[in-house]
Amino acid sequence: MKTLSARLACLLFVFFIGTVAMAAESLTSPNGNYQLNFSVNAQGEPVYELFYKGKHVIKPSRLGLDLKNDPGLLNGFTIAGTQTASFDETWEPVWGEEKEIRNHYNELAVTLDQANPGRQVVIRFRLFDEGLGFRYEFPLQEKLNYFVVKEERTEFAMTGDHTAFWIAGDYDTQEYDYTESKLTEIRGLMDSAITPNSSQTPFSPTGVQTSLMMKSDDGLYINLHEAALIDYSCMHLNLDDANLVFTSWLTPDAVGDKGYLQSPCVSPWRTVIASNDARDILASRITLNLNEPCKIEDTSWIKPVKYIGVWWEMITGKSSWAYTDDVPSVKLGITDYSRTKPNGTHAANNENVKRYIDFAAEHGFDQVLVEGWNEGWEDWFGKSKDYVFDFVTPYPDFDIAELNRYAASKGVKLMMHHETSGSMRNYERHMDAAYQLMVDYGYNSVKSGYVGDIIPRGEHHYGQWANNHYMYAIEKAADYKIMVNAHEAVRPTGVCRTWPNLIGNESARGTEYEAFGGSKPFHTTIPPFTRLIGGPMDYTPGIFDTKLSFLEHPGNGVNTTLVKQLALYVTMYSPLQMAADLPESYERHLDAFQFIKDVAIDWDETQYLEAEPGYYLTIARKAKGTGNWFVGGITNEDPRSTRITLDFLDPGKQYVATLYADGKDADYRTNPSSYQIKKGIVTSKTRIPVWMASSGGFALSLIEATPQDTKQIKKW
Amino acid sequence: MKTLSARLACLLFVFFIGTVAMAAESLTSPNGNYQLNFSVNAQGEPVYELFYKGKHVIKPSRLGLDLKNDPGLLNGFTIAGTQTASFDETWEPVWGEEKEIRNHYNELAVTLDQANPGRQVVIRFRLFDEGLGFRYEFPLQEKLNYFVVKEERTEFAMTGDHTAFWIAGDYDTQEYDYTESKLTEIRGLMDSAITPNSSQTPFSPTGVQTSLMMKSDDGLYINLHEAALIDYSCMHLNLDDANLVFTSWLTPDAVGDKGYLQSPCVSPWRTVIASNDARDILASRITLNLNEPCKIEDTSWIKPVKYIGVWWEMITGKSSWAYTDDVPSVKLGITDYSRTKPNGTHAANNENVKRYIDFAAEHGFDQVLVEGWNEGWEDWFGKSKDYVFDFVTPYPDFDIAELNRYAASKGVKLMMHHETSGSMRNYERHMDAAYQLMVDYGYNSVKSGYVGDIIPRGEHHYGQWANNHYMYAIEKAADYKIMVNAHEAVRPTGVCRTWPNLIGNESARGTEYEAFGGSKPFHTTIPPFTRLIGGPMDYTPGIFDTKLSFLEHPGNGVNTTLVKQLALYVTMYSPLQMAADLPESYERHLDAFQFIKDVAIDWDETQYLEAEPGYYLTIARKAKGTGNWFVGGITNEDPRSTRITLDFLDPGKQYVATLYADGKDADYRTNPSSYQIKKGIVTSKTRIPVWMASSGGFALSLIEATPQDTKQIKKW
Repeated sequence: MKTLSARLACLLFVFFIGTVAMAAESLTSPNGNYQLNFSVNAQGEPVYELFYKGKHVIKPSRLGLDLKNDPGLLNGFTIAGTQTASFDETWEPVWGEEKEIRNHYNELAVTLDQANPGRQVVIRFRLFDEGLGFRYEFPLQEKLNYFVVKEERTEFAMTGDHTAFWIAGDYDTQEYDYTESKLTEIRGLMDSAITPNSSQTPFSPTGVQTSLMMKSDDGLYINLHEAALIDYSCMHLNLDDANLVFTSWLTPDAVGDKGYLQSPCVSPWRTVIASNDARDILASRITLNLNEPCKIEDTSWIKPVKYIGVWWEMITGKSSWAYTDDVPSVKLGITDYSRTKPNGTHAANNENVKRYIDFAAEHGFDQVLVEGWNEGWEDWFGKSKDYVFDFVTPYPDFDIAELNRYAASKGVKLMMHHETSGSMRNYERHMDAAYQLMVDYGYNSVKSGYVGDIIPRGEHHYGQWANNHYMYAIEKAADYKIMVNAHEAVRPTGVCRTWPNLIGNESARGTEYEAFGGSKPFHTTIPPFTRLIGGPMDYTPGIFDTKLSFLEHPGNGVNTTLVKQLALYVTMYSPLQMAADLPESYERHLDAFQFIKDVAIDWDETQYLEAEPGYYLTIARKAKGTGNWFVGGITNEDPRSTRITLDFLDPGKQYVATLYADGKDADYRTNPSSYQIKKGIVTSKTRIPVWMASSGGFALSLIEATPQDTKQIKKW
Repeated sequence: MKTLSARLACLLFVFFIGTVAMAAESLTSPNGNYQLNFSVNAQGEPVYELFYKGKHVIKPSRLGLDLKNDPGLLNGFTIAGTQTASFDETWEPVWGEEKEIRNHYNELAVTLDQANPGRQVVIRFRLFDEGLGFRYEFPLQEKLNYFVVKEERTEFAMTGDHTAFWIAGDYDTQEYDYTESKLTEIRGLMDSAITPNSSQTPFSPTGVQTSLMMKSDDGLYINLHEAALIDYSCMHLNLDDANLVFTSWLTPDAVGDKGYLQSPCVSPWRTVIASNDARDILASRITLNLNEPCKIEDTSWIKPVKYIGVWWEMITGKSSWAYTDDVPSVKLGITDYSRTKPNGTHAANNENVKRYIDFAAEHGFDQVLVEGWNEGWEDWFGKSKDYVFDFVTPYPDFDIAELNRYAASKGVKLMMHHETSGSMRNYERHMDAAYQLMVDYGYNSVKSGYVGDIIPRGEHHYGQWANNHYMYAIEKAADYKIMVNAHEAVRPTGVCRTWPNLIGNESARGTEYEAFGGSKPFHTTIPPFTRLIGGPMDYTPGIFDTKLSFLEHPGNGVNTTLVKQLALYVTMYSPLQMAADLPESYERHLDAFQFIKDVAIDWDETQYLEAEPGYYLTIARKAKGTGNWFVGGITNEDPRSTRITLDFLDPGKQYVATLYADGKDADYRTNPSSYQIKKGIVTSKTRIPVWMASSGGFALSLIEATPQDTKQIKKW
């Protein structure tokens, strides 16, 4: 099938309905690179295997679900029929890494009969040029109407002892630092991989999270994840490290059940993306494509956001979220803040917020996040406190009306912050009033947080109950035309295609950990292959004062160079990008800060120039609606030299290139702030050599040159 | 202290603040009948004992709480100080068994020091003329700010092997039939006492519920319960049957914790009501008095309600809540009922509801409850279905606008029904819209239900999480001026004083069980001593066709005579009273039905004429704002003769007495519908002999006679 032109949504379905039970089925990807085989074995267990260019990616692996008070959907199956189809459509995301996304796959839907107790399930495979998605479908039927999942038993049998970039499987946090190891080494490394967190429930010495990135000894990059996690529990992977077989491991509820389902319904898609070229993993849009099209009719109010925030000063301990140190605990509506003594470190005060607004206005930022604006921060965490915030009552020193008026007068918006402290019922009770307050004052985006254990106790951050809550918050926000950036929520699975007001998520180890003791230097080379497979991350890059020199006791600081922080605006894709450092940190490096001001946050095209998970990454992106490009490159703790060929540029045009590079003496430990900036006129034929320091990087802006530019600026 | 005049709220506090730690304290009730001793024993455990007329009611019993990750509040205490006070106030309930309630007690508050870890708790005792209330108070302090209750260890040491009227302790149901036994017999009878229920979690072979009614061998009636259960877990009692000591046993959450508290805070009151005269138990207002005064400023919209309902026909199986039998399961918003085949048995249809409205209008009922009016009843129960109802979408055959218009045109209101199926989050999500719908259509009362296990799983009907929900529903209803009658919610503890829009509760074994196989003939002689100690019950009496003769397969039927059903309108106090039977059942006995039409539902005065729990009960009540009295009497399965002296009547007046008595051949098993009605003029000197059949009763109305009455009606 030939590539269909962009903007033309085109569907072509070819159905074959099998009438005779068959022992095996197979399916190939549109480009022929992939082959999927499906069969039912002697025990009546569904089995699939996946080949990439003739070699196994997934060895024969069983499929099925263990149900509660039920013989389960594990075996006793026969193939009742199959349907195949092809699909090719190009769609436009509301925001994204490119203007258009092609959704192109061949499909096999196998209907399986389970004679006893007499029911059917469908397993639907979609084979793309970059990998596979498959899911369970449960048609409405008498013997499978309401059912409870004890465990999903989807296997992913590996072909060897791959290298994996993994974090510990956990029902409550995704904020671990990555470990690179062989699969067989996971067990031995698990204890050290589980670092303390405000809420954490690891479950197995070989349990890991998705998206899981691996590399085989013969150079095959393999990614396992899920797509369209809706009304279901989040999947982890548990490794049988004797046989190198992963099996799905869902997040349980308080009584250990893993899903309450009502047919007709479907599981999320389980995805396998693989290639000999790591860049193909990054370029894959399988996760988005397996989600439903956008459900918001008018998306005109959804806009990418570049922002600063009253945040890093609290994260680093310079300032406080809390207004007072006077009260041992707060009872909302009873504690009278006007009678307490301000602690003098409360950052979300009128004067300080205005300082940030002024800075945002001066430097062209869209919004200013303000955390700690509302009553309750004195005892918000770890207290099993149900009524922890009301999301509508500002502290005495935060004049919500005046500050929003002031921001609006400067062309800036404030960004709302809703920390829930995991008290989900409390948040839902206040949600309408909280969103309405936002509308009343002109906020259009909210950063929400779920720090600490979920209330009610026993529920987990990634269980069906909590996942249902996150969706409720997103859908209700859409009613109010509010964009959501949920931290500590379940890791994304492409749901932002359907609900593009889900503008961001944290759901991984963000920059804040650089203030909590640091992340490994290789850290940011991995999330694009893992966490970002599901959707954008509010990583909050841009720390210039990496040594936190403004603190009395700075501690470890950020484990990158200053320039690497710039590169993250390109390598760590998000339509929501923060410049996380203090204004005064930027004011000391306004020349380098220029890149953060210039860099786009929405894109027409993306090219992955170099990629090796755990090692390095170079990405070039074309800014939405312009001819300008931005390139970012990063390395792990090994210094690295490379040469960027600008052949992605329009061959007929000249560009002003500005390169932000690590200084020759730069090193993330000893000299992180050493950088050099070089400017010159370039074309698509220019090659730019760059050197990156230990945990360094580079950033490059390529702005279409005006005739004046070409006169004033010398050639590269 | 002399009795203060009614309407005059009067407070008199006398404080004594002890400055020296003391070994023992004592307190007497205003009338001197009660004495409380408090001390700290050698282990530093707080100990109390209670005397009534010089004899032990509660032998020395320990007090304290076991905390999580904490040494606990069990021992190591010394008395740091005491405060005593007296209080005497008379207040007017919005509705009730009498016009004015006297709140009269002596108080002892003991401050206890726990040297290690260095903190204080207060135990506050209030000694009334009818018994004791005490609670734990946790002042705000560094070493006791946020804390988690592992278990409350409040003991109630009994003086002997009392006779108890008990139901099994259970975290999820209160709908068991009572068992009468010695305390030491509980263990042996527990298995048979635990009958099946839609949600049930018994916890111990000697665990029982409060309010627990007992009688000692020497004739002391003892009642144990709690008051003001707010933001705390509901208390059960677990019996050490070797030593005859009850210990409090709270309802846990999903992880086994029993309460998340933040100081300053208090426990509910634990109450001991005792007397040599069983009638004093019924007359006690300790439970109401220990609750806070009314928090609703304008209570003019809160009105007692006499109602009928589209209900019994579904309970008995004659009709259905569900609209169709066509769909195996429902997805709200997706299932299109207009395309399903009506099952022909759906009771909440326009025609049938109008029939009930007509009947209500003709016979002077305020409201018509309609259950099964909204989409979702096809699969509402036992399915772990989160989104089970939306509370706003009527079935196609229920025209909500037209039916409310029709009802209003007849001077009748419809009563809303919100079955939650235990899915509390779902109810809260829809609560504003649901209440607003009520306001829009003129509903002012809602019967809510919590049938089945709580969602999220692991939470229980009587845990702090659920209790918090019930209060949320009540308080939010007050915002909309809606009265709440919550079924399957936690048993009441006098909270209706504070929130009088809590117009009723089920929270016990109601009349519905008479259609599910029957309740024991003695059943209704017990709840006034137990369940009703906490607040009114929507018992839904009034079944005339006790043999359910309208059914094809009637089954067992109601275990009372027809006349006993009439008596329940007086003996089973509620400001919300249903005539539960089908209109056609009443039409066959319009003469007996007259009592239900006449009987008041709000009272100026109540006199308890005879009382013996498990055996018999006779109560006389004076209708609010009138001179009319209504008397009801019931017996257990033993026939009984008695003589009612009308000395409670105004001596100077004549009354038309109408006696509804069991027929001479009446028997609840063989001839339940045999009754006789006698009318005559009476005075306060008249004595009326009555005979009650096996599980029978009598009802008596006493209406101030007009001059015409005295001419036309002969003397008794």
